[in-house]
Amino acid sequence: MKIRKAVITAAAPQQRTLPLQTLIGPDGSPKSVLAILVEEAVSAGIEEVGVVVFPGDGEAYQRVAGLHGRRLTFLPQPEPRGYAHALYCAREFTAGEPFLQLVGDHLYVHRGGRNCAQRLVETASAEECSVSAVKATREGLLPHFGAVGGQVVHGRPDLYRIQTVLEKPTPTEAEQHLVVPGLRAGHYLCFFGMHVFTPRLMALLAARFENGGPPPASLSEVLQELAAAEKYLALEQDGSRFDLGSRYGLWLAQLALAMSGKDRDYLLSQLVSWLAESAMESPAR
Amino acid sequence: MKIRKAVITAAAPQQRTLPLQTLIGPDGSPKSVLAILVEEAVSAGIEEVGVVVFPGDGEAYQRVAGLHGRRLTFLPQPEPRGYAHALYCAREFTAGEPFLQLVGDHLYVHRGGRNCAQRLVETASAEECSVSAVKATREGLLPHFGAVGGQVVHGRPDLYRIQTVLEKPTPTEAEQHLVVPGLRAGHYLCFFGMHVFTPRLMALLAARFENGGPPPASLSEVLQELAAAEKYLALEQDGSRFDLGSRYGLWLAQLALAMSGKDRDYLLSQLVSWLAESAMESPAR
Repeated sequence: MKIRKAVITAAAPQQRTLPLQTLIGPDGSPKSVLAILVEEAVSAGIEEVGVVVFPGDGEAYQRVAGLHGRRLTFLPQPEPRGYAHALYCAREFTAGEPFLQLVGDHLYVHRGGRNCAQRLVETASAEECSVSAVKATREGLLPHFGAVGGQVVHGRPDLYRIQTVLEKPTPTEAEQHLVVPGLRAGHYLCFFGMHVFTPRLMALLAARFENGGPPPASLSEVLQELAAAEKYLALEQDGSRFDLGSRYGLWLAQLALAMSGKDRDYLLSQLVSWLAESAMESPAR
Repeated sequence: MKIRKAVITAAAPQQRTLPLQTLIGPDGSPKSVLAILVEEAVSAGIEEVGVVVFPGDGEAYQRVAGLHGRRLTFLPQPEPRGYAHALYCAREFTAGEPFLQLVGDHLYVHRGGRNCAQRLVETASAEECSVSAVKATREGLLPHFGAVGGQVVHGRPDLYRIQTVLEKPTPTEAEQHLVVPGLRAGHYLCFFGMHVFTPRLMALLAARFENGGPPPASLSEVLQELAAAEKYLALEQDGSRFDLGSRYGLWLAQLALAMSGKDRDYLLSQLVSWLAESAMESPAR
């Protein structure tokens, strides 16, 4: 299975300015969040990127798209109808192909080796199926995520066959349906917004959005259908995930990017300078 | 002397996206750098703010202007001709009135009490003259700043009558012309981009830009003329100044804002969570 396309969802009214924010990237040069996401996708072999946007945002995004701007297509979501619908707005762009999916309001900072998109695309290509990146997450954070239950794939301690998908489960629901053998107690496998999906996902979304019935309450509801319809895997990642829309999320993401990369020593020296300056200042007059 | 107007210079090609960046402000709510600067000006009694912009940037700035957006007028600088010329682009806006001046690429984080703009405007109003904010800065940083020499004003250890202004002086020039009694050895009074100027400054700029002669090499050159022409003071500040265009400048400014404000405990707890998560992760598989 060859994965050539990526879809970045960035149309939510509360989150549309996040991809425009500037961070110093893993390579030590300043760039937008959008450019960091696009570079991660391209590093995984992606050739074309569709960005689902709030109508009219395409131009501002194009300006900060960086090196790979020519690979971008902007796909307006006419109304704010949620994540599942935003993905569905990319159906003509994906045109029956499998695709990598990233959300525009999270960054994932890996530690050494291949990044998250590379590992996902490689696994999905080899296994010929949809694969979601997940992270072992403590119970207290369940209200923020979709979570999965399933069984470890033989011989691959980081890979799970997904049986159940629940959106923001309660601790009781999680304990009943999502306990995964081998994880630390009180921890569950939660999504953080990076996936590879087969064309089947678009077919399931079409069934929900085109037949006049009620739309899905969340993407997780449709992913539960995907798990029932075909092989669907979860790939565990062990870096750090940052919700850029949360308070200090962008700031913490920058800290993690710098500390995991070539700027570690530089940033530490800047921090020490600031602390020294603060300590040496004369008392307020 | 009543100061009702402020001018924010933000037209430099390398710095024009900085005012659009989002930070969590001193009050704990997310806002653009532009909005933080405008709020500081308004807190000092400013009613109208002229923002000198790269042509076409006004619309993007207006979108992030925050609470006081209706106070803003955008003043395009047609060509990138430097800081002194950018200020001169505000001559019709200031219309013969004194004005507060802030640069769009720096943030100043004070520690308790009145902020920098409030102290500047208060001093300029009382003294009826131009006043520049300065900070005692170690010699090694002179290549980044304009610096002043002068004498302390009797009875006011934080206030200096400016006699000399030099742009980015060498250590030798500084030692010859800028030593200020009472400062720690090896330290000089450097600007950081916040001033109150009388209308005389615009007259001096007009003489430089309208007579066909060579333009000033820096604003400091014109400020030296200002110091020769009328009383011109420097007000020392003891918080921290951040060049938002420097590597990690925005990140450090956010750290200082949070640590000096109501979010101190929250940010410390987020840092500890991240450190704990990093430490607890299983080794890379």
